[in-house]
Amino acid sequence: MKIDVYFTPAQIDELQLREKNVVVIDVLRAGTSIAAALSNGAKEVIPVDTVEAAVKLSGSLFGDVVLLGGERMGKIIQGFHLGNSPLEYLKESVKGKSIVYTTTNGSLAIMKARYARSLVLASFVNIGRVVEYLKEGKQDTILVCAGSRNAAGGFSLEDAVCAGMIIHRLKKFELTEVELSDSGVAALTLYRSIGKNISKLLVESEPGRYLAAIGFKADLKICAAVDSIPVLPVLRGSVLKLQPGTESSV
Amino acid sequence: MKIDVYFTPAQIDELQLREKNVVVIDVLRAGTSIAAALSNGAKEVIPVDTVEAAVKLSGSLFGDVVLLGGERMGKIIQGFHLGNSPLEYLKESVKGKSIVYTTTNGSLAIMKARYARSLVLASFVNIGRVVEYLKEGKQDTILVCAGSRNAAGGFSLEDAVCAGMIIHRLKKFELTEVELSDSGVAALTLYRSIGKNISKLLVESEPGRYLAAIGFKADLKICAAVDSIPVLPVLRGSVLKLQPGTESSV
Repeated sequence: MKIDVYFTPAQIDELQLREKNVVVIDVLRAGTSIAAALSNGAKEVIPVDTVEAAVKLSGSLFGDVVLLGGERMGKIIQGFHLGNSPLEYLKESVKGKSIVYTTTNGSLAIMKARYARSLVLASFVNIGRVVEYLKEGKQDTILVCAGSRNAAGGFSLEDAVCAGMIIHRLKKFELTEVELSDSGVAALTLYRSIGKNISKLLVESEPGRYLAAIGFKADLKICAAVDSIPVLPVLRGSVLKLQPGTESSV
Repeated sequence: MKIDVYFTPAQIDELQLREKNVVVIDVLRAGTSIAAALSNGAKEVIPVDTVEAAVKLSGSLFGDVVLLGGERMGKIIQGFHLGNSPLEYLKESVKGKSIVYTTTNGSLAIMKARYARSLVLASFVNIGRVVEYLKEGKQDTILVCAGSRNAAGGFSLEDAVCAGMIIHRLKKFELTEVELSDSGVAALTLYRSIGKNISKLLVESEPGRYLAAIGFKADLKICAAVDSIPVLPVLRGSVLKLQPGTESSV
């Protein structure tokens, strides 16, 4: 199987990935928070790209089963029920709910890749499930890092290292022949060089320092907990749901 | 000094870099070929983004002092005098000439960054001169990798490693305090992990394999020869010239 890595979704044309299998990676924090929400019994997460679209869509759904979630500049959006901290997506808040969800990078990356043949969502908390899924499917796959819209030309170190960890784990299965693009080589190299301590990586990263500064230091520990939320969020039509059979035992 | 790295110029807005100091990096092959051309006595290199613009511009210049150079898909463009191999930019061809120049990635990256406060061009062949220049200026700088338009979401491994080598050398000067963005950390990590053998890196890279397949294997050795063409191409207005005092002794 061929594995390619996009370090940013910025230059993806919406139709470009139509025949591709895609894994969208967003460590801080959408990938983690959506895994938490679905693991805690949310019915579905509906990613949208703008606050306006989120408000409009939520208005057309039944009020008692829908929640608005997401962030701008890392903070909860005015009038929304939930921000973007995985600690907010608890069972008592989200069970049975549809969550209309918009974030700066993660939901945008999902929107850009939504016409892909398949799309699953990855972060460190569910990386084992994602690797298992890729190993079973043996399909050529593009790992799309949600990246950052604001800094460093779209690059996000923690997403790149997560892509590298996926590749590293895939290559450990000797039955799987993995052919890497140059960006795949780069991601693997980054993981092997600086991916030993994910917690430290997140704490020292630019978004990690920003999140700590605005009061979300505790999130970094959650987001660094490898394989702590072993679920597989997949995009079906325009909503993210758990792959049947991959629900957590909550 | 702060060093940031953009792994692709794709999402640069043309005016975004106006107050920034920029180093454009294109190892395969524009950065190398332009260094060769200027080192071999070309008066100037005029980067343009399209073949049409190149033809139009060259028509408005005096025929005997202007050459058309560049590539599409790695190959010489029909009607052009020179392709994009550094081996074509010899003294007997280019001395005293203005070269109107268009390539898929390199000249495009220069065009995108042309409103920067300062712009110099780097590749392995002139990396020492670039580092010396940065060290003297001590200015915050963005290293913009020309990258690839066709594959891997714009990422180019050899440009990223070259960025990392620039950072590595800057950090060796203990008088220079270097503050890195996350992408800077990534570039430095890539250089330190897989930058020991540049020749091997280029031969095994995606563009390197492509260039070898279309008959430009010899170029890879030229492009891998660290500090072999110690000149500093700088953008003045819309043309690249050698920084006074950095001409080679040719």
